[in-house]
Amino acid sequence: MAKFSRGMGKKTGLAPGTLLPLNGRVDEVTIEVISYDAAGVREEQPNTVSEVLRLKNTHTITWINIIGLHDVEVVERIGKGYGIHPLVLEDILDTNHRPKLEDYGNYLYLVLKSFRRQDGTVLDTEQISIILGDTYVITFQEEDKLLFDSLRQRIRGESGRIRQLGADYLAYAMLDTVVDNYFEVLEELGETIEELEDALVMEPGRNALMEIHSLKRRMLLLRKGLWPLREVVGALGRGESQLVKENTLLYVRDVYDHTIQVIETLETYRDILSGMLDIYLSSISNRMNQIMKVLAIISTIFIPLSFIAGVYGMNFKNMPELDWEWGYPVIWGIMLTIATTLVVLFRRKKWL
Amino acid sequence: MAKFSRGMGKKTGLAPGTLLPLNGRVDEVTIEVISYDAAGVREEQPNTVSEVLRLKNTHTITWINIIGLHDVEVVERIGKGYGIHPLVLEDILDTNHRPKLEDYGNYLYLVLKSFRRQDGTVLDTEQISIILGDTYVITFQEEDKLLFDSLRQRIRGESGRIRQLGADYLAYAMLDTVVDNYFEVLEELGETIEELEDALVMEPGRNALMEIHSLKRRMLLLRKGLWPLREVVGALGRGESQLVKENTLLYVRDVYDHTIQVIETLETYRDILSGMLDIYLSSISNRMNQIMKVLAIISTIFIPLSFIAGVYGMNFKNMPELDWEWGYPVIWGIMLTIATTLVVLFRRKKWL
Amino acid sequence: MAKFSRGMGKKTGLAPGTLLPLNGRVDEVTIEVISYDAAGVREEQPNTVSEVLRLKNTHTITWINIIGLHDVEVVERIGKGYGIHPLVLEDILDTNHRPKLEDYGNYLYLVLKSFRRQDGTVLDTEQISIILGDTYVITFQEEDKLLFDSLRQRIRGESGRIRQLGADYLAYAMLDTVVDNYFEVLEELGETIEELEDALVMEPGRNALMEIHSLKRRMLLLRKGLWPLREVVGALGRGESQLVKENTLLYVRDVYDHTIQVIETLETYRDILSGMLDIYLSSISNRMNQIMKVLAIISTIFIPLSFIAGVYGMNFKNMPELDWEWGYPVIWGIMLTIATTLVVLFRRKKWL
Amino acid sequence: MAKFSRGMGKKTGLAPGTLLPLNGRVDEVTIEVISYDAAGVREEQPNTVSEVLRLKNTHTITWINIIGLHDVEVVERIGKGYGIHPLVLEDILDTNHRPKLEDYGNYLYLVLKSFRRQDGTVLDTEQISIILGDTYVITFQEEDKLLFDSLRQRIRGESGRIRQLGADYLAYAMLDTVVDNYFEVLEELGETIEELEDALVMEPGRNALMEIHSLKRRMLLLRKGLWPLREVVGALGRGESQLVKENTLLYVRDVYDHTIQVIETLETYRDILSGMLDIYLSSISNRMNQIMKVLAIISTIFIPLSFIAGVYGMNFKNMPELDWEWGYPVIWGIMLTIATTLVVLFRRKKWL
Amino acid sequence: MAKFSRGMGKKTGLAPGTLLPLNGRVDEVTIEVISYDAAGVREEQPNTVSEVLRLKNTHTITWINIIGLHDVEVVERIGKGYGIHPLVLEDILDTNHRPKLEDYGNYLYLVLKSFRRQDGTVLDTEQISIILGDTYVITFQEEDKLLFDSLRQRIRGESGRIRQLGADYLAYAMLDTVVDNYFEVLEELGETIEELEDALVMEPGRNALMEIHSLKRRMLLLRKGLWPLREVVGALGRGESQLVKENTLLYVRDVYDHTIQVIETLETYRDILSGMLDIYLSSISNRMNQIMKVLAIISTIFIPLSFIAGVYGMNFKNMPELDWEWGYPVIWGIMLTIATTLVVLFRRKKWL
Repeated sequence: MAKFSRGMGKKTGLAPGTLLPLNGRVDEVTIEVISYDAAGVREEQPNTVSEVLRLKNTHTITWINIIGLHDVEVVERIGKGYGIHPLVLEDILDTNHRPKLEDYGNYLYLVLKSFRRQDGTVLDTEQISIILGDTYVITFQEEDKLLFDSLRQRIRGESGRIRQLGADYLAYAMLDTVVDNYFEVLEELGETIEELEDALVMEPGRNALMEIHSLKRRMLLLRKGLWPLREVVGALGRGESQLVKENTLLYVRDVYDHTIQVIETLETYRDILSGMLDIYLSSISNRMNQIMKVLAIISTIFIPLSFIAGVYGMNFKNMPELDWEWGYPVIWGIMLTIATTLVVLFRRKKWL
Repeated sequence: MAKFSRGMGKKTGLAPGTLLPLNGRVDEVTIEVISYDAAGVREEQPNTVSEVLRLKNTHTITWINIIGLHDVEVVERIGKGYGIHPLVLEDILDTNHRPKLEDYGNYLYLVLKSFRRQDGTVLDTEQISIILGDTYVITFQEEDKLLFDSLRQRIRGESGRIRQLGADYLAYAMLDTVVDNYFEVLEELGETIEELEDALVMEPGRNALMEIHSLKRRMLLLRKGLWPLREVVGALGRGESQLVKENTLLYVRDVYDHTIQVIETLETYRDILSGMLDIYLSSISNRMNQIMKVLAIISTIFIPLSFIAGVYGMNFKNMPELDWEWGYPVIWGIMLTIATTLVVLFRRKKWL
Repeated sequence: MAKFSRGMGKKTGLAPGTLLPLNGRVDEVTIEVISYDAAGVREEQPNTVSEVLRLKNTHTITWINIIGLHDVEVVERIGKGYGIHPLVLEDILDTNHRPKLEDYGNYLYLVLKSFRRQDGTVLDTEQISIILGDTYVITFQEEDKLLFDSLRQRIRGESGRIRQLGADYLAYAMLDTVVDNYFEVLEELGETIEELEDALVMEPGRNALMEIHSLKRRMLLLRKGLWPLREVVGALGRGESQLVKENTLLYVRDVYDHTIQVIETLETYRDILSGMLDIYLSSISNRMNQIMKVLAIISTIFIPLSFIAGVYGMNFKNMPELDWEWGYPVIWGIMLTIATTLVVLFRRKKWL
Repeated sequence: MAKFSRGMGKKTGLAPGTLLPLNGRVDEVTIEVISYDAAGVREEQPNTVSEVLRLKNTHTITWINIIGLHDVEVVERIGKGYGIHPLVLEDILDTNHRPKLEDYGNYLYLVLKSFRRQDGTVLDTEQISIILGDTYVITFQEEDKLLFDSLRQRIRGESGRIRQLGADYLAYAMLDTVVDNYFEVLEELGETIEELEDALVMEPGRNALMEIHSLKRRMLLLRKGLWPLREVVGALGRGESQLVKENTLLYVRDVYDHTIQVIETLETYRDILSGMLDIYLSSISNRMNQIMKVLAIISTIFIPLSFIAGVYGMNFKNMPELDWEWGYPVIWGIMLTIATTLVVLFRRKKWL
Repeated sequence: MAKFSRGMGKKTGLAPGTLLPLNGRVDEVTIEVISYDAAGVREEQPNTVSEVLRLKNTHTITWINIIGLHDVEVVERIGKGYGIHPLVLEDILDTNHRPKLEDYGNYLYLVLKSFRRQDGTVLDTEQISIILGDTYVITFQEEDKLLFDSLRQRIRGESGRIRQLGADYLAYAMLDTVVDNYFEVLEELGETIEELEDALVMEPGRNALMEIHSLKRRMLLLRKGLWPLREVVGALGRGESQLVKENTLLYVRDVYDHTIQVIETLETYRDILSGMLDIYLSSISNRMNQIMKVLAIISTIFIPLSFIAGVYGMNFKNMPELDWEWGYPVIWGIMLTIATTLVVLFRRKKWL
C-alpha cells in the first residue's frame, strides 16, 4: 500500500528551491518529444537536455514528456531552458505534493495525481506535473510510461481533433486521461465493495473488517488526490488564464463535471462502507447471540435435571423414594415433564 | 438494485465527443413528435430522423421525445439537425450522468434523474435529457414510456394552460413531473420505513438490519439524484437565460420549493433510519440480556444445590449425616431455604 | 404522532394551480373578520365569501381568518377577490408545506407551522398561511381556533399598541404568537427530557429507548418547522418589502432573536438526548455485567467443589481416602479452603 | 445545575414590551453609581431612581450598575430616563436571553452571560446587560456583586488607564472581565477532566459515565454562552458604531482573540471527553472480558473432569474399571493430564 | 504531555497590557543579534537591552532573537525601544496564545507554535513571536535554542539567497522552518501510527486503546497550532501589507501550500486513527467471541453427558439398566453418539 508520508520532513532548514533527487529510483530518465500540427507529427527521444532545448523554437505544438525524476540536473536544465521558476522545479521533484494549479503568467503549472495499476490492483500513486505554455506542454512523470499511451495514439492518428487544436487542448486531454484513470480505479473499487458486501451477507469472515479498513484507506488516498483536483479543474475552467482558449474551456468544464461525478461516487462508496461496518459488527454480535442462546437453553434444561439426578445419588440411609418400586420411572417422568415444560416456555418466548 | 457504477471507465483515452451506444438495450428507438399551439395538437411517430427534422420549421411548440438511447446515429443526426454541441450528445448517451443544467446560449441542456417503478418497487433510475430551445423541447429517455403520460393528456386537453404557453412552460411541466415522481418514491419509502419501525418494536427480526441497510442504499441513490437536481432547478429559477420567460419563473420557483421539501423529507428519513439502527441493536442486546439473565438465575440457584447433592453422594465411610434418620429431609430443607433466599435476593435486585 | 409524509405525491401529473381539497376534514369552514383602527373594533362571522369581500373596502385594518381548508371554493373565491396568485392558493391547501416567505409585490405570503396541543401533548402540526397586504391580513388555518385567542383579546382591548399600528404589526404579532407556541412546546419537551433523565439514572427501564426515540422524532418535526421559520423571520426582518414599515422591523428582529433562541434550545436538547442514549446503553451493559459477574463468581467457586464431591462419589473399590476415618471432614476442610481462597482472590481483583 | 429552559414560554400572547418581574428573587435591588474622570472618582448608592437620574447630566463618565432585576419599575424608569427602547427593557428582564449586540444609534445594547461560582463549582449563569452611551454605561446584573469588583478597584486607583479613557473603554473592560471569567471556569473544567481521566485509567468507577455526562452538560451551557459572545465581540470589533472609538477597537479585538481561544479550548475539551467515553466503555467491556475469561477457563477445565467423575459414580453392576486395583489412581492421572493439556492449550492461545 | 490550559485565567481583573512573567522558568534570558547584508554578517550576544537598542540604527537587516520570556523588563524595554504596542508585549508573554497575524502598520506581529522534540518525542509546544519591521525582525522564543540553527547557518553562508533579500524574506524563512518542524512531527506520528496498526493486527494489546487516545490528544494539540497557522500564512500571502514585498509573496504562498499539505496529512491520520479504534474494539469483541464459543461448545457437549452419568449414579433400588450386563458399554455408546452428533452439528453451523 502506498504510504502517506513518503519523504516528508527531509528538507527542514534548507533554502527553498534547493533541488533534492528522489532516492531509490535508479532507472534512467526517459525524455520524449512529440511535435505536431495539423500537417504532421514528429516523435523523438533525445538523449541530452540540450537536444531537447534545440527542438524548442518551432512553429508546431511541442510536448516534452520526462519520465523519471531522479536526475535533478535534467529537471534543472529544462527548467532553465524554458524559464520555469525554481519553486516550480522544487515542487516537481517533491512527489508528495497535492494537486494544484499555479498561474505564472506565461505558463501554467499543474500538479495531478494518477494511479499506477496492475491487474486491478493499485500499485502506487503517480505524480504528474504539467507545464502549459503557449505552444508547448512539458510533463514530468514518476514512472508510468503507459498512462498517456492512448493520447499518443490520438496525436499520431490523422483525423483527430487534437492535431487541429493548441497546447491547451493537449493539456486538457491529459486532464481527461487522469480523470478517466480515477473512473477506472473507482470501478474496480466498486466491484471489490460489491463482492465484499455479498461475502458479508453470506458469512462475516474474520478478514472482512481488515478488508473494510483497507478499502477505507485506499479511499482516503483517492480523496487526497481528488478533492484538490476538483479545485484545479474548476479554476482552469473559469478561464482566467489567457493560455486556455475559449474553445477549450467547454471541454475543461466537461472534465469538471466528470470530476464531480467521481467525487460523488467516492462519497457514496464511503457511506456504503460505513454501512457495511455496521452490518459486520451486527453479524458478529448476532452469531454470538446464537451461540449463547444454545448454551443458555442446553444449560437451563439440564441443570435442574442434573440436580434431581444428584439428589437421588445421595447416600442417605433413610431415603424412602429410593426403595419405592416406581421411584425410578417416576423420576424419569418428572425429569421429562420439566424438560418439555421448559422447551414449551422457550418456544413461547421465541427463543427456539 | 440499481448499480452505482454502471459503465464507468469504459472510454479512457478516447477523444471526447466520441459517441458510444449503450450495451444490452435492444428495443427499438421510439420517436414521438407532438406539435401544439392554443389552436390545436398534432401527434406523430416518425420512423426516420429526416422525418423528424422535416417537422422542425413550424410556428408551433414542438416536443420531440426519443425513448431509447442505443441507436447512436439517431442521437447524432438529431443533434446535428438542431445544432447541438457534440459534448451534449456525449452526455445524453452517458446515462450515468448527474443532473445538471448547461446554458449554450440558444438552447439549455438539462439532465434529470427519475425512477422507473412497478408495484411500488423502484426498478431502476431513468435518465432524462431535456434540450430546451425557443420553440422546441427535445427529450431523451432511456425506456420509461409512461413517465410523461399525464403531460401528454394535458397537452391534448383543450382547456389546459399548457397550450397557451411556450416551450419553457413545457420544460417546467417536465421538471414538475420528475419532482412529483420523487414525491411518490419518497412516499413509498416512508411507508416502508413506518412498517419496518412497527416490526422492529414487535420483534427485531434477523432481516431488519439488512432492510435498514437496503433502505439506506436506496436513499443514497435518491440523494445522488436530488441534491444536484436542487441546483439545477435553483439555477433555472434565477432566470439568467432568455429562454425561460418571466412568467414561467414563478412556476420554476414553485418546483424549487417542492425539491427542497423532498430533500428535507429524505434527510428526515435518514435521521429516522439511523435512530432505527440504534433501536435494532439495542433490542438485540436486550434479548441477549434476557436470555443471559435466565441462564444466570437458573445456574446461580442450582449450582449450590447440586454441590450439596454432590457432597452427600460421596462414598466416605464415616459420614454421620448419612446415617442420621432426619438427614435427608433436613438436607431438602436446607436446599429449599437456599433456593428461596436466592430468589428473594434476585427479586430485590430487580433481576426477576 | 403526526406523520411526515401526509398526502405527498397525490398530485403527480396534474396542472399546477389545480386546487385539491384536504380529505377527511368535514367540519364547516369558519370565517371570521375583525376590522379595527385606533377608534374601534368590529367583529363579524360572515357565512358567505361575498360578504367577506363586501367588507373589503374600508379604511380600517382588516383581519380575515379562515379556519378549515376543506372547502376549496372558499379559498379560491377569496383568492380571486384579493387578487392572490393561483400558486399561492395551491400552497395554502397543501398543509404539508414548509415555512416560507414569498414577496408578490403588493402582498407577502407567509407559511408557518405551529402545534396543536392538549394537556401538554402535541396532537398535530397546524399550518398557518398569512397573506399580508397594505391594510389587510388574511390567515388560513387548519383547525386550531384557540391559537390566536390572546391576539384577539389584545385587539379588543383599548389600550394596546396593536390598535394604533398597521397590518404589518398584526402579522408580526401572529409570528410572535407562533414562536411563543414553539417556546411552550419546547418547555414541555424539556420537562419530559428531565423526567426521563432522572428515570434513567434510577433504573434503565425497558421503554426508555422507545421514549428517547419518540422524543427524537418529535424534535425532527420541530426542526422541520423551525429552521425554515428562521429564514422566514430573518428575510422579513431585512426590510426588503415596502409592506413592513421601519417601525415594525425592530419587533420582527426581536422575534428573530427568539427564533434563534428556540433553535439553540432545540439543538441543546438533541445533544442531551444523544448523551442519554449513551447512558442508557451503558446502564444496560452495566446491569449485564453485574449479572454475569454474579454468575461467574458462583460458578467459579462451586465448579471445583462439585468436582471434588464428584471424585469422592466415584465407586472405585480401591479408594483409600474413603475408608479413612477423617476423610470426610478433611475434604470439607479442603473445600472450604478453596472457597475462601477464591473469595479472597475475587476481593483483591475488585470483583466483589 | 442550571436549567436550560428557565421561564420560557410564560409570555405567550402578551404584547411585546410588557415587562414581567423575575419570580422568586426577593432581595432588594442595589443601585450603584460611579462617576469618574482623570481627575477623580465619586461613588454613590442612591436609593431611588430619581436620584440616579439626577446624577445624569455631568461631564464625567457615569457607570450605573443595577444588581437585581425583580423590581420592574426600577428598570422601567431608568429606561425611560435614558431613552431606552421598550424591547431592550423587556430583554433585560428576560434572563434567559442569548448574548447579543444591538445598535440603537445613540446607544449600544449588549447581553452577556457569565457564571457565578463558589469554591470552584459553577452555581448558575449570570446575565449581564450593558447599555453603552456616549458618556455613560448602564449595567444590569442578576445578583453577582463580586463580578466587577476588580474593575471598581482599577477605577478607584489613580494611575490606571481606565480613568483617562471613555465609556467605551469601560464597556470593553467589562467584556474583558466576562471573558476572563470564562477562562477561569474552563480552567476548573480542565482540572476536573484531568482528574477524571486519571481516575478512568486506574479504575472505571460506576459514576464515571455520570460525571462525563454532567461535564458534557456543563459544556453545553458554556457553549450556549460562548458562541454568540464571539459574534458580539466580533461585531463590536468591526468598529461600525461611532460609540466605540478607534483607540478602543484594538482592545476589543484583543478580547476577540481571547474569546476564540476560550472556544477552541472548549472544543478541545469536548473532543477529549468523547475520547474518554470510548475509554470508559472499552474499560467496562475489558473487565467483562476478564471475568468471562476466568469463568470460561474454570468451566472448560472442570466440566470434562466432573463428567469423568460422574461416569465412575454410576452404579452399573458390570463396570470392570471400578474393580481394577489401579483404577482410581489411573483416573486421577487421566484427569490431571486433561487439566494440564487444557492449561497448556490456553497458554498457547494467550488466554492465560 | 503538554497541558491544554497552562496558566489560563490568572489575570482576571487586571488591566490589559499588565505584563506578568512566566513562572518556573529560571534560566537566564539569551539575547542574540545578527546583522547582515549581502556584504557581511555580524553576530553579537549583548548582555543588556540598551546594547541591543544601540545596535538598532544600522543599514543592515537586523535579527534580534530573545530566548526566554521570564524577564518582563527585557521584553518591555525592547518593546518600548522599537515602538511596539503594549498589547503585543502582553501577547508575547502569554505563551498560551493561538497563532495569529496582526498588522500594526509599520510592523507585523506573528505568533506561531512549534514543537520542542527529543529523540522523536514531543516534549512541549514552543511559542514563537515574530515582529517584522522594515529592516528588522525581532523573535521571542520560550527556550528552544536549536530551532533556528539551520537558518543561522544559511545567513552565515556567503552564497545563500537570504543575504541578498530583506527582512520579509527572513521572516518567511522562519515560517518555513516552523512548518518543516510540523512535517517532522507528523512523520514521527505517522510512523507511530503504522507501528500501532501492525501491533493491532497481531494482537490487540491492552494498552492499544490508551495509545490511540494519547495519539488523538497529540493530534488535537497539533490541530490547535495548525489551523490558525493556515490562516496566518494565508493572510500573509495575500500581500496586504507593504512590509512583505511582491518577490517574497511567491515563497509565502509556497509555505501556504505546505501548511495545507500538513493539515491534510493530519486529517488523514485522524481518519486512520478512528478506523483503528473500530478495529481494536472489534478485535476485543472477536477474542471474547472465541472464548465464549469454546465455553459454549464444551458446556453444550458435556452437560447432557454429565446428566446421563448423574442418572445412573442414582441409588434407586429398582433400576433394571444397572443390573444389565451390557448396561455400562451401551451407556458409553450412547454418550459417544451424543457427543459426535453435537460435534457434527457444530461443524455444520460453522462453530468449529
